[in-house]
Amino acid sequence: MLYVKTPEEVLDLIHKEFTGIADTELVELSSAIGRVLAEDIASEEYVPDFNRSTVDGYAVHARDTFGCSEAIPAMLPVVDEVLMGQSADFVLNTDECCIVPTGGALPEGADSVVMLEYTENYGDGLIGIAKSAAPGDNVIFRGDDVYPGKVILKKGRVLSAQDIGALAAIGKFCVPVRKKLRAGIISTGDELVQIDEKPKNGQVRDVNSHMLAAMLEAFGVHAVNYGIVTDDRVLLSEKMAQAVTECDIVLISGGSSVGVKDATCSMIESMGELLVHGIAMKPGKPTILGKIQNKPVFGLPGHPVAAYFVAKLFVLPLAAVLTERTMILYTVTAVLSESISANQGRAQYQCCHLERQGSSIVAYPIRSKSGLITTLAGADGYFCIDRDCEGLPKGAQVQIVVSIGE
Amino acid sequence: MLYVKTPEEVLDLIHKEFTGIADTELVELSSAIGRVLAEDIASEEYVPDFNRSTVDGYAVHARDTFGCSEAIPAMLPVVDEVLMGQSADFVLNTDECCIVPTGGALPEGADSVVMLEYTENYGDGLIGIAKSAAPGDNVIFRGDDVYPGKVILKKGRVLSAQDIGALAAIGKFCVPVRKKLRAGIISTGDELVQIDEKPKNGQVRDVNSHMLAAMLEAFGVHAVNYGIVTDDRVLLSEKMAQAVTECDIVLISGGSSVGVKDATCSMIESMGELLVHGIAMKPGKPTILGKIQNKPVFGLPGHPVAAYFVAKLFVLPLAAVLTERTMILYTVTAVLSESISANQGRAQYQCCHLERQGSSIVAYPIRSKSGLITTLAGADGYFCIDRDCEGLPKGAQVQIVVSIGE
Repeated sequence: MLYVKTPEEVLDLIHKEFTGIADTELVELSSAIGRVLAEDIASEEYVPDFNRSTVDGYAVHARDTFGCSEAIPAMLPVVDEVLMGQSADFVLNTDECCIVPTGGALPEGADSVVMLEYTENYGDGLIGIAKSAAPGDNVIFRGDDVYPGKVILKKGRVLSAQDIGALAAIGKFCVPVRKKLRAGIISTGDELVQIDEKPKNGQVRDVNSHMLAAMLEAFGVHAVNYGIVTDDRVLLSEKMAQAVTECDIVLISGGSSVGVKDATCSMIESMGELLVHGIAMKPGKPTILGKIQNKPVFGLPGHPVAAYFVAKLFVLPLAAVLTERTMILYTVTAVLSESISANQGRAQYQCCHLERQGSSIVAYPIRSKSGLITTLAGADGYFCIDRDCEGLPKGAQVQIVVSIGE
Repeated sequence: MLYVKTPEEVLDLIHKEFTGIADTELVELSSAIGRVLAEDIASEEYVPDFNRSTVDGYAVHARDTFGCSEAIPAMLPVVDEVLMGQSADFVLNTDECCIVPTGGALPEGADSVVMLEYTENYGDGLIGIAKSAAPGDNVIFRGDDVYPGKVILKKGRVLSAQDIGALAAIGKFCVPVRKKLRAGIISTGDELVQIDEKPKNGQVRDVNSHMLAAMLEAFGVHAVNYGIVTDDRVLLSEKMAQAVTECDIVLISGGSSVGVKDATCSMIESMGELLVHGIAMKPGKPTILGKIQNKPVFGLPGHPVAAYFVAKLFVLPLAAVLTERTMILYTVTAVLSESISANQGRAQYQCCHLERQGSSIVAYPIRSKSGLITTLAGADGYFCIDRDCEGLPKGAQVQIVVSIGE
């Protein structure tokens, strides 16, 4: 007999029972954004690979400028000009200077650059330097940014635009990332019809498989839709066996009927191991989690809002575990627009609209009796009311998990 | 002569000079996540389209249960059973009850459902009801959630997983969204080589076009890469003309050389109108914005970190304007790990690492002399130090724009 677990216990169990299984593949940099890095990435090169000027000016030996001023400029013969993108394959001797552009290479010997603004070209091959330079002024030395062996990105990171830029800079045009997981989605329930059908009396459209597929795809998981299975144990067990074979995670998005729930439970027990039967949360209590052939199988509640929260809170973190993905949950502080009560004994999750008002964000809880479309559509995020909390007053600070565009 | 503008002035100008131009297209619901809704979406149906039970129990006329209790149950003959997904095409008379499952349809006449727990089946066709029901108890009435004409999602919204669920529920299997914008990216600079080339002395790899393309694609904009153009006015003007013709936005990711910057400016002036020449921000000052054939043309700084901020702060908001996309910037409150100084007179943008420590998030500013890879790689977000601020002390609260995975 399994007792209802708290959300924290379920997350602990997910970390304990499942481990990284996703293989590695190489993808081109142009399609690497959003993917999970499979290895630490170290540079094999120096960046920059030459001493580089950060300004337009004259490369010098700093020592030659010590003590100079506008009144008594240092006078140095200009011996050469480095062009953009060209190597500076000559040696700058002491008491010489040469022109370098921003981003240009310094010749050997030069250790600093004096900005154009502090110089004067006398037109006779001599340059007046009106400001002394310290060694290193306006120069990025070879390897200042990156040197061979330096790790620039850690395994598990989800690659963002700035990471793509860094990888481009060190010439990593192919990147080792985790293969996308495959999540099989089975919808169950005699009342379900396809979304392009008009429901007859007593029927509703299959909302969950579409919502879950969208959420998983946005998280970088490939969603495989196994369609709607009616409340028939033989059919359901066949589909489950197929999905377990073909996928890394299986989601059985439960119809509302008791029969389907019992069937999911008993089938997981006969094919593998039942780990969770009920979570102390609202909505989302009738959630099942089991393991078949070492693969996680979820029985999600039929109610779309409940399925939404269970997927966000447990299915995505599980997908992160299986790909060893680093996952930090950032929240936005908002002010509650009205008081809200809660059932003690269960963590309560509440969808809300968000609105910026001056310098603060205001959270408007979305209340709805039936809680289907009107709760989901247009929700900008959600917050949690703790298990032991009786409710929150108007004006309370809440931590919002923002969910726009994902 | 154009003077340097503040970031706010540039955003105002973007809103004033450019308007929504993106056409509408229909996409299947399965590929609609992340897209920008082109019209308000109203339901054409009732959801649910029938009175629906929210529990397993007996549908009744509430009035027949008034005054009943465990001691004196109401005794009602059970006349029928509604099956899951089946219509309840009979009338429930007063002093009758019928079995309904969770999610099942109520027969005409029934106005409430008594939960199984509060009933007893005497086995002789009579059901004992031990708890009185009020009309509406455990019922979602037809259209309680949505009714024809009710707007469930507003134009401009970026569709998220929960929105996909709501659209599925009302049978919107095709959704009107904005066509993806096309952004043309031209890299300029004699020092640039492709990312799969080994830079020679004086050369660096083309970082910006890859970083910008990744950022734009993640934002839902199609990036068109026009490759690297050397510092040659004829070539550059040809590429610019081509990109302006083929795209909705053009980004000229500047090389570091003065020549290229001048060329971009004078070409925008000769082909259209120069709007911005310099922004009072750090990094990012040498930014150009113009308009050619009513299309925005950006000249971005060559420095990747500067290009990153200008793209985040101005190019993405511009893409939002062109698609009439609703854009709210949410920030995460973090505590600064160390003091940081700032140049007065310019808004200063600072990349940082984030780390959760107990209940707070700590922001570690990424400091780097050269500020290329080590600043970009692994940055979890950024914050802004206002123009008039001399710096921030250790422990100061900062508002972080989080940028992981996008």
